[in-house]
Amino acid sequence: MRIVVLAGGIGGARFLRGLKSAVPDADITVIGNTGDDIHLFGLKVCPDLDTVMYTLGGGIHEEQGWGRAGETFAVKEELAAYGVGPEWFGLGDRDFATHIVRTQMISAGYPLSAVTEALCERWRPGVRLLPMSDDRVETHVLIDDGDGGRKAVHFQEYWVRLRAQVQAHAIVPVGAEQAKPAPGVLEAIAAADVILFPPSNPVVSVGTILSVPGVREAVAGAAAPVVGLSPIVGDAPVRGMADKVLAAVGVESTAAAVARHYGPDLLDGWLVDTVDADRTADVEAAGIRCRAVPLMMTDTEATARMAAEALALAEEVRA
Amino acid sequence: MRIVVLAGGIGGARFLRGLKSAVPDADITVIGNTGDDIHLFGLKVCPDLDTVMYTLGGGIHEEQGWGRAGETFAVKEELAAYGVGPEWFGLGDRDFATHIVRTQMISAGYPLSAVTEALCERWRPGVRLLPMSDDRVETHVLIDDGDGGRKAVHFQEYWVRLRAQVQAHAIVPVGAEQAKPAPGVLEAIAAADVILFPPSNPVVSVGTILSVPGVREAVAGAAAPVVGLSPIVGDAPVRGMADKVLAAVGVESTAAAVARHYGPDLLDGWLVDTVDADRTADVEAAGIRCRAVPLMMTDTEATARMAAEALALAEEVRA
Repeated sequence: MRIVVLAGGIGGARFLRGLKSAVPDADITVIGNTGDDIHLFGLKVCPDLDTVMYTLGGGIHEEQGWGRAGETFAVKEELAAYGVGPEWFGLGDRDFATHIVRTQMISAGYPLSAVTEALCERWRPGVRLLPMSDDRVETHVLIDDGDGGRKAVHFQEYWVRLRAQVQAHAIVPVGAEQAKPAPGVLEAIAAADVILFPPSNPVVSVGTILSVPGVREAVAGAAAPVVGLSPIVGDAPVRGMADKVLAAVGVESTAAAVARHYGPDLLDGWLVDTVDADRTADVEAAGIRCRAVPLMMTDTEATARMAAEALALAEEVRA
Repeated sequence: MRIVVLAGGIGGARFLRGLKSAVPDADITVIGNTGDDIHLFGLKVCPDLDTVMYTLGGGIHEEQGWGRAGETFAVKEELAAYGVGPEWFGLGDRDFATHIVRTQMISAGYPLSAVTEALCERWRPGVRLLPMSDDRVETHVLIDDGDGGRKAVHFQEYWVRLRAQVQAHAIVPVGAEQAKPAPGVLEAIAAADVILFPPSNPVVSVGTILSVPGVREAVAGAAAPVVGLSPIVGDAPVRGMADKVLAAVGVESTAAAVARHYGPDLLDGWLVDTVDADRTADVEAAGIRCRAVPLMMTDTEATARMAAEALALAEEVRA
């Protein structure tokens, strides 16, 4: 079974671990969000790709959900001693090595997809991890500038430094219009038996991947059923601050509103949590098959059951 | 008193600490060797400049003589886990931060001299530290290629990886001919009251600095007396492997031969160790004033006495 997953960071990575556990023999291609990539200290940092790679490769800081286990912060402390920031982005020493290798390869002319493949030779995540694009796409967030106007900040600044505590007026994937899907992305979508949207952020993770010209069309036109899992449970994000960026694009923070935001052109099936069972009718009214199942990724077993439910729903809509 | 010192790495840095102790109010300009700079992991590493900066700024690993005190090696271990080397060059986590800041500034368009000044704002070495040139000069060493021919390797590969255990046929400061002295270098030499050659390597440290067009001429033509301290004591290098590179340029490893190698055009005075007191006549016969004094930099006090002897000899030749 060929499965394609459009993944953001922590939520996507944890879902993938459950999916692998549910169907160990499946051929899984992950199309990773690179809109939250950021250049720090002259190095190219790809938080979502790395979170997937570290999580599936056994190197993740489990409690934190991102970054490396057993991490130290000597480089960051030294950079701060030089007065070089930002200090709000927590790059650890082990993590730095990944960005050094990536930056060196990019400087040598390798595209991000080739670099990601090389990094995965170490981590062996058990999936094929593709960046959504080899071209630079950078998600910016429009916020108040404190002076009556507005300004755009990098998504990481909005998310990590400002903790999404200021109003986001718009989310702009800068560069997306000119970006091309990375080699293999459209081919994987076309050849998929199932396409899954994990409970990743529908705006800044899955939404950014879909903003690369050709990707949305490929998913909408794919022969395979497309099934998503709601990142909103009981009208609040399971983790992260998806509600803030949903508001920026005029979408309510409900499991049903997110399904309608993706729409029936993209989605064939949608899973909501059992606490949102009363929302399934809304979703089905929009032309999307919907089931209510437990959606809390408390451990790999629970997550594997979620993945199995998603695959079962895909079979149901296929039939 | 304005003192100019042409310095390599460990020997130069330790001498400078003694000099500062001997004449705390002197205005000291250090012209640092950059011929052993190396690009590793996409980062620009300047071992000699950093050794001077860390030593005078209180950050040096004292026993080792180079690198940072309290160093850790997480980044290097991770790079090795990615299969990315070289592993023979010991970059620690704290040290990495220096190279990251430097590389970021260089990439932003700042010349190495401006970068060095910025790094020194943190370390406050108490001297003005200038790279010999803002242009790239890279010392290569010609060695046997094991196949009957010869090949050039980077000085660091010869020195650190091969530990100077293979024969060096030639030492070539690649790029030196096209290099210009960094801003301030010629001006400092011209304005100096005293010019000192510390017991640094006469070939790959002081020699490389002198290979930058204009520097040798400026030193030879300076109004100030030029006094050097022998890095060879009892016919062997005090530390390092200066004998290996002296052989490559056809110079005997004796305190007198090194003085003659610099020559009376450059040197007005030369200090040899007391064990080499019988060599002073040879040196004076070459037209260079010579004194035998203890030259072991066992601690800052002993080194300060050496610096004071060098300054006394400078006064003597001036009179």
